[in-house]
Parts: sequence; structure tokens; C-alpha cells
Amino acid sequence: MSTLKSKAAIDHRICFVGDSFVQGTGDPLCLGWVGRVAQDAVARGINLTHYNLGIRRDTSRDIAARWQQECAARLPADCEALVVFSFGVNDTSIFEGVQRVSEEESLANFQSILRTASSSYKVLMIGPPPMPDSAHNRRVAQLNKQFAELATTLNVPYLSVFEVLRKDEHWLKEAIANDFAHPGQHGYERLAGLVQGWSAWWFGT
Amino acid sequence: MSTLKSKAAIDHRICFVGDSFVQGTGDPLCLGWVGRVAQDAVARGINLTHYNLGIRRDTSRDIAARWQQECAARLPADCEALVVFSFGVNDTSIFEGVQRVSEEESLANFQSILRTASSSYKVLMIGPPPMPDSAHNRRVAQLNKQFAELATTLNVPYLSVFEVLRKDEHWLKEAIANDFAHPGQHGYERLAGLVQGWSAWWFGT
Repeated sequence: MSTLKSKAAIDHRICFVGDSFVQGTGDPLCLGWVGRVAQDAVARGINLTHYNLGIRRDTSRDIAARWQQECAARLPADCEALVVFSFGVNDTSIFEGVQRVSEEESLANFQSILRTASSSYKVLMIGPPPMPDSAHNRRVAQLNKQFAELATTLNVPYLSVFEVLRKDEHWLKEAIANDFAHPGQHGYERLAGLVQGWSAWWFGT
Repeated sequence: MSTLKSKAAIDHRICFVGDSFVQGTGDPLCLGWVGRVAQDAVARGINLTHYNLGIRRDTSRDIAARWQQECAARLPADCEALVVFSFGVNDTSIFEGVQRVSEEESLANFQSILRTASSSYKVLMIGPPPMPDSAHNRRVAQLNKQFAELATTLNVPYLSVFEVLRKDEHWLKEAIANDFAHPGQHGYERLAGLVQGWSAWWFGT
């Protein structure tokens, strides 16, 4: 019974599925928040394999199309199979004058992905971070709010990071200095800290 | 023309496709050789996004089934699209008394994967590392030799690491101390160094 095993003995495998913020774009250490939370768990004796499945420019539509196949290839039946999702910023981007994914479709994708994933795996969702663009941020804030409410009805733990990162001393500054989207080392460290300090996180201190 | 751009301006994206050694299993820093070569390139000013598509237990058959879809989702037409493959150890494992993938099939998978990949992307192949098991190693050594010869006929640069790592002061020691398969920090550092020092590597010093 895995519940009777120590955390060091359990074969934990996590797929982190999302966009460029999951991939860690802009981090000079090539870790992102994903690599940092994995390092932290391993340093504390957790037997953990992490798979970073963040893809730049991915919307909820892109993720809906690929997450099942990519996770199934990485999470065998005999492991403690965990999935963390994070997406939303790209849904709310304007491309050629049109929002890439409508709010209605984003919510439908969110519901479909999280409901299906929860039936096979332990699942967490991290909300979208802020951008250094106030119009874009209004849309991200609105989607984040809707995602959080929907997650409650789906019984999936949801970590809202938008407000904290918007006020963070590094996140938006690093994004502006970088490519007007992605933070650097300090921003990713901060986000990793938020995940690690979250009560729903599997390997909290 | 990308050839006229500086390396800092080119949007390089690499998919590293392979097995647990690509994933970095056993590395306390959760980087593996893949994370280390990415860090090194970024530290030297290369604009690089790296996708780690190593999966534990994957054979050439598993990789043949997934690499195209996973790479296509990550390598848009407007980037400098690069793919590094590394597999072979799991093909030569004995499972329930039978070699998981026959040499004949391994070579057919190798040829099919590298030929197809080379038609769309710049491609490199890193050979399989040694294991702390002499019978298994005889099969890995033989497959490595066959892979190297086939790579020459396919005109794909192939880095044979088997002999160097077999004599490395850390690789097999760390593997034995770890899980009888995967090295730790020093082994992965050494393999990263071999890739970075290879004349075919895109971001060599």
C-alpha cells in the first residue's frame, strides 16, 4: 500500500503541463519554477522524476490536444502519478486582432482537461502569471478568477499567483528587461516558493 | 537569412529525445546532461529554448512511436529547429527473459527515426552509456558500434560515449551507489562535457 510507504520509497512521477512559464523561458539557469520545485523535493529526500511538458505559445486548446498522450507515455500504472497544469496567458493574447482563445472556450478546455485528468491522476493547477501589459492583464485577471471558481466546482486545488506576482518586486521588472513576457531567475524563484509554500503541494516543507 | 544573424539573435529550440539518461534520472540537481548543456549555451549568450523529452524505460520502439508528434508540437517553422536523440540501453535490457528490442529492430528503428528527423530538422545522436553489468554492457557496446556505423551511412553526427564513460572515475561508481543504472551529479557533468566538447555540437566553445 503506497500510503504506508515512506515518501522516499514511493516512486513519484510528475508531469508539469503548460506553456512557456512552465517551460521556464527566460531563466538563465534553464530550470524555471518547475526545475526549482523538483530540486527542492529531491533535496528533501523525495524519490521524484519530473517531466517538464511546458511548450511556448501553448493555449488551453493546444494543451487539450496533447496532454493525455504525453502524460500516458510518462506515467506508468505502478508509479505515484501526479500532474500539474498551468496555462491561460496565451489564451488571452491578441493575435492578428483576435483573442487567441475565447473565454468561453478557455473555460470549456479547462473543465475538460481537469475533469479527465483528475479521474486518472492526482492533479493540481497553477493559475496564469501577470504580464507587463495592463490591457492583457485585465483579461488574465478575469480568466484567473473564472478558472479559480471552476476549479472549486471540480474539486481541483488551484493556486492563484496573479496578484502576488503582479506586486512582486522582480517578476514584472525582469519580464520588461527580458522579452516583455517572461521573468528571469528571481521571478521563477518566487513562483517556485509560492508552489512550495502552498498547502496543497505534495512535497511542502 | 538566419545564417547572417548572430547566434544570440537566432531563436534556437532543441528537443532532446530519449530515455532516462536524457531525462536526467538520479541527478540530485534535476538537470542531467541536457540541463547542463542548455545552461552552458545560455550562459554564453545563445538564445535557446530546450525541451527535455527523455522518458524512463523508453526503447527505440517507444521513441519511434512518439518523437514526431512531440517534436512537431515544440518546433515551429520559424525557429532554428534542432533535435538530439539518445537511446539504446533499454533496447538491450532483458525483461522476463527476453531482450526488450532485438538488435535487428533497434537498427531499423534507428534508421527510420534518424532518416525522417534529418529531413525536417538538424539532428545529432548521442550513443548509449555503459551500465554496471558486464553482460548488459556487451550488448550495449555491440549496439553502440552498429549505431555508429549506421549513423555514418545516414550522415548523422554520432557521439559514442560508451568507452569514455565506462572508464570514467564517477559514472559507474555513482550508478552502483544510486540504482544500478543512473549516475549522479558527476556522471552527468562528465557526459555534458563530452557533448560540449564534441566538434558536431552546435554551441561548442
